[in-house]
Amino acid sequence: MIKADSSVIEKNLRGLNEFNSTPEFGTTRVLFTDTELAGREFVKGLMRDIGLEVTEDSIGNVFGCLKGTDSSLAPVWTGSHIDTVLNGGMFDGMVGVIGGIEALRIIKESKTEHKRDINVIIYTSEEPTRFGLSCLGSRAMAGELTLEDTKKVYDKDEKSLYEVLNDLGYDLSGFSDIVRKNGDVYAAVEMHIEQGPHLEKDGKKIGIVKGICAPSNYDVTVTGVQSHAGGTSMEDRHDAYMAACEISLILEKLARENTASEYTTATIGKIKTVPGSVNVIPGVCEFSVDIRDIDYDSKRILMENLMSCFPEIESERGVKIDVKTYNCDIPIRCEERITDMIEKYTKELGYSYEHLISGPYHDSLFVGRFAPVAMIFVPSRNGISHSPGEWTDFDDIAAGTDVLARTLAELANE
Amino acid sequence: MIKADSSVIEKNLRGLNEFNSTPEFGTTRVLFTDTELAGREFVKGLMRDIGLEVTEDSIGNVFGCLKGTDSSLAPVWTGSHIDTVLNGGMFDGMVGVIGGIEALRIIKESKTEHKRDINVIIYTSEEPTRFGLSCLGSRAMAGELTLEDTKKVYDKDEKSLYEVLNDLGYDLSGFSDIVRKNGDVYAAVEMHIEQGPHLEKDGKKIGIVKGICAPSNYDVTVTGVQSHAGGTSMEDRHDAYMAACEISLILEKLARENTASEYTTATIGKIKTVPGSVNVIPGVCEFSVDIRDIDYDSKRILMENLMSCFPEIESERGVKIDVKTYNCDIPIRCEERITDMIEKYTKELGYSYEHLISGPYHDSLFVGRFAPVAMIFVPSRNGISHSPGEWTDFDDIAAGTDVLARTLAELANE
Repeated sequence: MIKADSSVIEKNLRGLNEFNSTPEFGTTRVLFTDTELAGREFVKGLMRDIGLEVTEDSIGNVFGCLKGTDSSLAPVWTGSHIDTVLNGGMFDGMVGVIGGIEALRIIKESKTEHKRDINVIIYTSEEPTRFGLSCLGSRAMAGELTLEDTKKVYDKDEKSLYEVLNDLGYDLSGFSDIVRKNGDVYAAVEMHIEQGPHLEKDGKKIGIVKGICAPSNYDVTVTGVQSHAGGTSMEDRHDAYMAACEISLILEKLARENTASEYTTATIGKIKTVPGSVNVIPGVCEFSVDIRDIDYDSKRILMENLMSCFPEIESERGVKIDVKTYNCDIPIRCEERITDMIEKYTKELGYSYEHLISGPYHDSLFVGRFAPVAMIFVPSRNGISHSPGEWTDFDDIAAGTDVLARTLAELANE
Repeated sequence: MIKADSSVIEKNLRGLNEFNSTPEFGTTRVLFTDTELAGREFVKGLMRDIGLEVTEDSIGNVFGCLKGTDSSLAPVWTGSHIDTVLNGGMFDGMVGVIGGIEALRIIKESKTEHKRDINVIIYTSEEPTRFGLSCLGSRAMAGELTLEDTKKVYDKDEKSLYEVLNDLGYDLSGFSDIVRKNGDVYAAVEMHIEQGPHLEKDGKKIGIVKGICAPSNYDVTVTGVQSHAGGTSMEDRHDAYMAACEISLILEKLARENTASEYTTATIGKIKTVPGSVNVIPGVCEFSVDIRDIDYDSKRILMENLMSCFPEIESERGVKIDVKTYNCDIPIRCEERITDMIEKYTKELGYSYEHLISGPYHDSLFVGRFAPVAMIFVPSRNGISHSPGEWTDFDDIAAGTDVLARTLAELANE
């Protein structure tokens, strides 16, 4: 098979990056804005240019299909997303779409025979930027976002996803056709930037993803007694904030010391004290908890261990602690058979590599609900993403594309 | 002298409480809002009803004057404030104004002769609710808030106190007349709710204040590295929020264990993480620190001890900690001659009492910069204030008013 062309990848990534609402500060391409719609058309054009058949489903997932010799077989998929966070970069997601198109180009131009169809996909809105919910397209494929659900997610202008899809002329009567069941897709391989520092730090070109962490999200509310900062002696206090600090540090310690799993993180990104005045002891303190793990049980047990500390904090501080669970998503392990294949081609091509866990989740997490999946990571400079500082060398993307193309072709001949 | 009428006090407090922006959840009366301006007019009406002469200075301090037989002598003052924290109660401050008016009514109706004028005062904005700075009126009297300073304090809409006063038509050319020097005021006695649990717990009706703690206020900013909650392992983090939690718990421990002073508190009422997203590790965390003490040196040393822990936290967590000092106020001791007088009348009237330290500060802290001051406390149910749960029995306010009236009359005859 011929090699991927990094100048083609650069040209296409830079071309896509022209569709950007914030050219002065990173890349912003928010779902179904004029900018994003134009970006979709640009990518569809790239697909057609190399002879792919382009179709789109009822939630806007775009499929570029390279026909195999037996289209009756379950297809092989690749692809990622082209939407961004606010003021993000030009690589997160885009690399998997543009690289996927390049992979299909070299398979085709090398005249590599393959039985199964190979699709490169733009999944609709992996980022939660517009609707506060991530992975809209792949989530719908997994049956975890129904047409009814689209009426219940809103953007900042209080417009529902349902209304937006309707206004854009998507055929909502075909919404149930989005859903895939086991067997519908033979295998799916997504290329993505690492969004972490390991490949760069370890001087490796290719990351072979062993598994994708999934988040559990909670809101914790501590209720104490709101009272005057001066009038209430230290021993008479029921300070909701100080209890929250104690819980936070226990959570950090549990995540740091968790040996039950290969990869665990715990983050408190958002906190609010009520009433939030300099001179009032907080009567209420609310904060978010985000726990990610490659192992579902380890994640569950970590939260149980945290909560087992609550009764003591409650009785010592005279506060009440309530937990609201938002989601408790199941991590997935990548299909070993496919990661072995990726490793084989990486070695053949002479690229350095290492096995990694993906802390961030991706569309593959949801695709993994109905198909065997694997992911190929390429290095992120300084480990930075979701930032204008995001960068990956085009040569590294070409290397990932070489591995991707060979893996897709082998899968498509099984 | 006749006794104070608790039904008059109840009627006037409930009348004033009609001016409330949050009638469903406690009392909110924020400086120079329509609600507060209407509340001021209501109180001025009460002053005029009992024959007081009403004047107002350039920062909105309102004086209700009961003329003595020799107005050339330095006057005696009482009074407090009518503004509130957000979702506070109907007693904090208001008791000293409404009770002060009732004290002047019984002095007058008892035809008690007095040489000096006796003023009941509404001090402008004791609470820092609107401008983030407390005791605006009494602070200006003490010369610690100049006209220039009013241009540098802003409300949440970025409007300066100067602009607000100007828009309301206050004569800012007379601003320097607000300032009092030693000798201008003969003595000042403020009645206030305790805002603590001691009187209730000890079953006492009257608290005789020995001294008033003063606050030191700081903003602490922790700067770490903002990063993706999933992509950054626990050991790679520089989490600004977790460092803030550690600092908070050290502060709490230092205040709890401080044996260098009779009374120390430390409070963190306000905290903010940046960017404040569930799935992003906070790169910046800002929080307020409020330390109160009856001993200036003990307060200073406590902050020094806290800051001595910063280098270790900075190096262990890879964060930077900055402290901005807002104020470091000097506590005051009440005038023993006046507290003896208060004790004498309390005994004569047969009310139980005890001597207390005031954790919260009051306008008297600033009035104490230019005049001898004392304070009378009445019980707070469950010690709660700055909360919708704030409560003081009207009979207890009447008892405090009886003591206040007799003390004011004796002082006004000296």
